[in-house]
Amino acid sequence: MGSLLIKNVLLDGKKTDILIEGNRFGSLAAPAGTVADTVLEAEGMAILPPFYNTHTHAAMSLLRGYADDMPLQKWLTDYIWPFENKMTRQDIREGSRLAVREMIRTGSVFFSDMYFDIEETIEVVQEYGMRAAIGVTFVESHSKSQQSEKLDMLRHWVDPTGGLISLTVAPHAIYTVGPDLLVKCAETARTLGMKIHIHISETRHEVDDCVREHGTTPVRYLDSLGFLGPDVIAAHVVHVDEEEAAILARRGVTISHCPCSNMKLASGTFPYQMLRAAGCRITLGTDGDSSNNNLDMREEMKFAALLAKSTSGNPETMPAGEALAMATRNGAEAFGIDAGEIREGMLADALLIRLDDERMQPCHNLVSNWVYAAGSSCIDTVLCNGRILMKDRIILSE
Amino acid sequence: MGSLLIKNVLLDGKKTDILIEGNRFGSLAAPAGTVADTVLEAEGMAILPPFYNTHTHAAMSLLRGYADDMPLQKWLTDYIWPFENKMTRQDIREGSRLAVREMIRTGSVFFSDMYFDIEETIEVVQEYGMRAAIGVTFVESHSKSQQSEKLDMLRHWVDPTGGLISLTVAPHAIYTVGPDLLVKCAETARTLGMKIHIHISETRHEVDDCVREHGTTPVRYLDSLGFLGPDVIAAHVVHVDEEEAAILARRGVTISHCPCSNMKLASGTFPYQMLRAAGCRITLGTDGDSSNNNLDMREEMKFAALLAKSTSGNPETMPAGEALAMATRNGAEAFGIDAGEIREGMLADALLIRLDDERMQPCHNLVSNWVYAAGSSCIDTVLCNGRILMKDRIILSE
Repeated sequence: MGSLLIKNVLLDGKKTDILIEGNRFGSLAAPAGTVADTVLEAEGMAILPPFYNTHTHAAMSLLRGYADDMPLQKWLTDYIWPFENKMTRQDIREGSRLAVREMIRTGSVFFSDMYFDIEETIEVVQEYGMRAAIGVTFVESHSKSQQSEKLDMLRHWVDPTGGLISLTVAPHAIYTVGPDLLVKCAETARTLGMKIHIHISETRHEVDDCVREHGTTPVRYLDSLGFLGPDVIAAHVVHVDEEEAAILARRGVTISHCPCSNMKLASGTFPYQMLRAAGCRITLGTDGDSSNNNLDMREEMKFAALLAKSTSGNPETMPAGEALAMATRNGAEAFGIDAGEIREGMLADALLIRLDDERMQPCHNLVSNWVYAAGSSCIDTVLCNGRILMKDRIILSE
Repeated sequence: MGSLLIKNVLLDGKKTDILIEGNRFGSLAAPAGTVADTVLEAEGMAILPPFYNTHTHAAMSLLRGYADDMPLQKWLTDYIWPFENKMTRQDIREGSRLAVREMIRTGSVFFSDMYFDIEETIEVVQEYGMRAAIGVTFVESHSKSQQSEKLDMLRHWVDPTGGLISLTVAPHAIYTVGPDLLVKCAETARTLGMKIHIHISETRHEVDDCVREHGTTPVRYLDSLGFLGPDVIAAHVVHVDEEEAAILARRGVTISHCPCSNMKLASGTFPYQMLRAAGCRITLGTDGDSSNNNLDMREEMKFAALLAKSTSGNPETMPAGEALAMATRNGAEAFGIDAGEIREGMLADALLIRLDDERMQPCHNLVSNWVYAAGSSCIDTVLCNGRILMKDRIILSE
């Protein structure tokens, strides 16, 4: 890998030249006369960390707008599942490609996925040069041989990119996976040093069913199985009480907050203040295109911040910088990616943002403009691992 | 004014040629061989109505990101008012220009404004060819001579564009305008056949103060003054009870719902279902750039729909088509503009939307994609009154 010099870019309000050496930031103040294999002129642009989308179902891009504005059960049983039953491997590839392109276009360099036929998704991610943590999904209804196959895939996994793609062990949820398989998933992940990706307490219905079946709430139930730990990424976590928040914090669980999906499906109101006060690590996810209906993390930051303020009744809740941290470094950290900030020595993931867009003017506060005012179309360039994925809004595999 | 032919555009899922004659839609299915002064090739694009933003403060674009994430009183007294006190007429012009450009770029062809030094804003609107209803703002603290001047301006108003710009009588709010001046404003508007633009029940604080001072709530108080009528556009209307909703509906008051502003300032939760059930006409506004922080009505539609679902706990609340109607024809109707739908004989206001953007794919449902998935960067062309304001995303005064 060569070197890349970003010239005349605004970093923390000051114009500088940034040198990327290999896949890491070398110098954030490269001296005049610095030479590099590639030079990016960034006059009039600011550099910001890109997005790390911690919960999605990429190939569901094919279901964007297929069914909206209806109750969850009807949505799932009459529309989503019948559609998914007809999806071929080629569909998964096309859906993954559409999602990957949408994510790069909107500034994400990483996503944590949970779906099926993952070989297709992995190949597309590889083709475009993004990072991803691809979930190997477990549900109870799969046959024993399917489950063995999945365990084998996990055990024999070799990242074809040498660092951009990992697998996660992804038991779908407590209502689709029984206790034995949940424990098996956790053990496998811990043996292999992989992350665990699961939906937790998305709906009131899930909590009520859990109490009926297991005599306790989902977080307590999972904790009683020894399932929870710092390797767990829990999507949604809408319906939890204060003690459950404390358990999640104590176990070091990462939460993937998906405000658009929760609001659109009317799943309930995310208890941001409570989870934050408990000390949980909170990241941001878009969920799939079928329940959002896009993968735009810039928009998701605004939804997260405005929802948190509206819910708490306090405009000081989740200031812009906090929303940005959730969407960037918190997500990277949760997956052990040494990125999410523009800092010397860190992996060179970044966005170059055009400041000539009306929404970015005036620039009293870049982070405020980015979280509250911008559109993802202000993104000119996306860098991942020192490589250019998009430039002048053109995706480079195009 | 000449004729304009839009070729190969998708209307309700079918490809057609649309002929605009003068400032109105002539034929939505122009026969082959139709000639026109101007031809727009719209292959791969869909036509949709543009946005009518019913509540904003355009020149506050200069305060975008100047102060966020703080309590309303501190925000106003320590930041907004001191800043505004220093604004010159030239600032108002520059702020209006930035806002007008932002609005055209994001698909609005009309805004209802409330600010000061309105001559500057009017000239900018005229320059760019948008529609606007510019509020002549009344507050109690203005001197008698200032108020006379404003009344004179209203009485002698002549729209320099012959149809695109109107004035509204804009008493700021019940807490800044006393009962006599409120009545005077309403009488003046009714004598002159103008609309009335006012903030109503934005915060709990406003309601509590009103009850303390006038012994009743804002809507009841205004109704007791004979203020409410079908010419009133009421911004916010967050804190009202069922009887007040019935009063607003009976008087034919139009509501300008501003979800982003209400959420960002934590003003309270808009009672959408109650106001809709009462039969109120509900439109959409962005409020100013200082409390949103953009003027993007596409984003505002998504916020409105997702907030309504989240608040009601029912994903069927405010389906996509309802959000689109609020942002388009409801707003146009409220201001007596014969537009907001793509229909023969109506004023030719429209957007051409690029369908090759990832977020618009696949296109199971165009309206769903537009409300929930798109970004305003999908807008290629903006037409207002039969004239092109933006094409290929280039604003034509550029």
